[in-house]
Amino acid sequence: MQNFVYGNRTKIIFGKGTEKTVGVETAAYAKRILLHHSGGHAVKSGLLDTIKESLKAASVEWVELSGVKPNPRLSLVYQGVEICKKEKLSFVLAVGGGSAIDSSKAIALGARYDGDVWDFYDRKKTAVEALPVATVLTIPAAGSESSISSVITDERGPWKQSVNEECIRPVFSILNPELTYSLPPYQTACGVADMLAHIMERYFTREGHVELTDELCEGTMRAIIRNARKIFNGGTQNYDARAEIMWAGSIAHNNLLSTGRIGDWASHAIEHELSALYDIAHGAGLSVIFPAWIKYNIKEDTPRLARFAAKIWGVDGAYYDFEQAALEGVFRMKNFFRSIGLPVTFADLKLPTDRIPEMAKRAVKFGPVGTYKKLDAKDVEAIYRIAAEET
Amino acid sequence: MQNFVYGNRTKIIFGKGTEKTVGVETAAYAKRILLHHSGGHAVKSGLLDTIKESLKAASVEWVELSGVKPNPRLSLVYQGVEICKKEKLSFVLAVGGGSAIDSSKAIALGARYDGDVWDFYDRKKTAVEALPVATVLTIPAAGSESSISSVITDERGPWKQSVNEECIRPVFSILNPELTYSLPPYQTACGVADMLAHIMERYFTREGHVELTDELCEGTMRAIIRNARKIFNGGTQNYDARAEIMWAGSIAHNNLLSTGRIGDWASHAIEHELSALYDIAHGAGLSVIFPAWIKYNIKEDTPRLARFAAKIWGVDGAYYDFEQAALEGVFRMKNFFRSIGLPVTFADLKLPTDRIPEMAKRAVKFGPVGTYKKLDAKDVEAIYRIAAEET
Repeated sequence: MQNFVYGNRTKIIFGKGTEKTVGVETAAYAKRILLHHSGGHAVKSGLLDTIKESLKAASVEWVELSGVKPNPRLSLVYQGVEICKKEKLSFVLAVGGGSAIDSSKAIALGARYDGDVWDFYDRKKTAVEALPVATVLTIPAAGSESSISSVITDERGPWKQSVNEECIRPVFSILNPELTYSLPPYQTACGVADMLAHIMERYFTREGHVELTDELCEGTMRAIIRNARKIFNGGTQNYDARAEIMWAGSIAHNNLLSTGRIGDWASHAIEHELSALYDIAHGAGLSVIFPAWIKYNIKEDTPRLARFAAKIWGVDGAYYDFEQAALEGVFRMKNFFRSIGLPVTFADLKLPTDRIPEMAKRAVKFGPVGTYKKLDAKDVEAIYRIAAEET
Repeated sequence: MQNFVYGNRTKIIFGKGTEKTVGVETAAYAKRILLHHSGGHAVKSGLLDTIKESLKAASVEWVELSGVKPNPRLSLVYQGVEICKKEKLSFVLAVGGGSAIDSSKAIALGARYDGDVWDFYDRKKTAVEALPVATVLTIPAAGSESSISSVITDERGPWKQSVNEECIRPVFSILNPELTYSLPPYQTACGVADMLAHIMERYFTREGHVELTDELCEGTMRAIIRNARKIFNGGTQNYDARAEIMWAGSIAHNNLLSTGRIGDWASHAIEHELSALYDIAHGAGLSVIFPAWIKYNIKEDTPRLARFAAKIWGVDGAYYDFEQAALEGVFRMKNFFRSIGLPVTFADLKLPTDRIPEMAKRAVKFGPVGTYKKLDAKDVEAIYRIAAEET
């Protein structure tokens, strides 16, 4: 087990009706804030009105910036930074999913920086300070509500890059599972793939003797899969199933499951090129890439891949033929993804294959990716090809 | 699933050699501190010298108060409070296990209060502020290093009472598993029982649909049991096994495993009377009480007790005869406790039975205990009797 430092300051306020506390919670930090969201569902559903009432009641003023899109764009971040500076706002409240939150984190970074906020994403600068960010979560997926991550797309590349620093971890996040009843099935499914991927990136490690966190990873994955099935089996409005999924999404990415381990994260880098070029949902890209990543690595610590098949997918006989068990695990994982409406091949996403070599080169632009097996452009290209050839 | 608020500010600094960072970490909070410990093993092992060097290098001054005993005493807390007030100390650093930490938390409370600090433990006052507390942990057991709990014994009763408030949660805790190599086997075992009990108190709930935290509880219990066996099977100096146990002890009691659930906590209340009257180790009292508590409750949500037997103790057939499976689980739990040298009966601890009615009355002095089944004095007495009659 590796040495580690672990802490998570995010105050999670979880459950029915909790969005009504947003005013009081915000007022403890600031009286003038940026309210940042997509402008879509949160407006139509009345959630934004509830939030504004709560802010008003707590004497918190806001400037509103809407228009966040999936794969959030740098251009909107620039607008947010300018507003915060001009209006002297000292807090960013995100309403939405990972996109609104990641965009808010980027704005919070830029508001405290004199240069170009993209410097942090382009690894020219290390982020050490930001405005406090808080969230009202409506899409369980990215885990951004209590994570140190922000992923932004510079549409001029397009480049999709991330910052992972403590200073952008939200100070509080409000999670009401009822707000997710109205999520379209595809978005629910993409969220499930995203949170499973966050755990798999941590689970597939070469670090020895990480039994406690192995157990925590496995338990969280099983809870996600079981409750996703409930939601897709007529449980759209099943509060408890929605609640398990929502809380699991945070735990998947708040770094508890990383303690003592070294994660892989190659699949995220490989997927980011798909969503950067073709603007597909991150979760959908992950359900295509992860099975291919496992297949490509089938000879790499096969017992761990077999254990994954046994503990998560119920593959019996994992201890007789590790490789066969591992492949059966991939087969069942793909079946699960398809059963909730997710793609598992390039064809499912109607993606062309002509830019595979280009994507592979872009994926390793900062050097080889992954730690389970270090992957160069040739490896990444092979993984894209497996995903393209999967049936 | 219940609504909940969850956060844990404690910064965990985990791994080999981490005690050397204590000076730098402390200096971020205070320049004059109380250094609180038992005066025993931490001195002999040289740990205290390492800590003092680190404090000195960071220009942190300290006043030392040693003499903490298991089941920490109110009289020493009073001394610590007086020293903090007189010397204007603004931080308490605990070196040791749960006793040193709980005593430090009590001192930190008292130093910010004009009245008698026992008021908080006697439920006359609610604790809202305290000096910051930090810890260098040497005994994985109580989970006090990142919990909101402090348990103190007023030797005049004797009364053993607790405070559970956010203001006493440590700001940082340093956990180096190497420091636990020299723990006597009995203390290692008592720690294992204590952390398992912390999880069982949370696991045995009447709250429906808490699947994610059920999985997290079960995984943590399995990791504890598996690694305790490694330590007792020749692995005294097995770093990884010690590390799994140490981290599990924190996770067992940092409230993550409570999220969305209502815990029971009757067994803790019932045990506290044993350790208050007979000054036995808390963990040893728990390994006696918990099997008896399950047996007494065998008709109460038997499927959950059977699930515990199946998932933690590998009892097959749990789904054919719940009660039989649950009892087999208790049998295996007792075997496990005995295999690591823990008592499971009054006789094992050489305890008399004449004060059972008195203890039962004292255990419910604030009213019935437990939520899985609400227990009055008669129920508690019956549980003591089962523990007395166990073989």
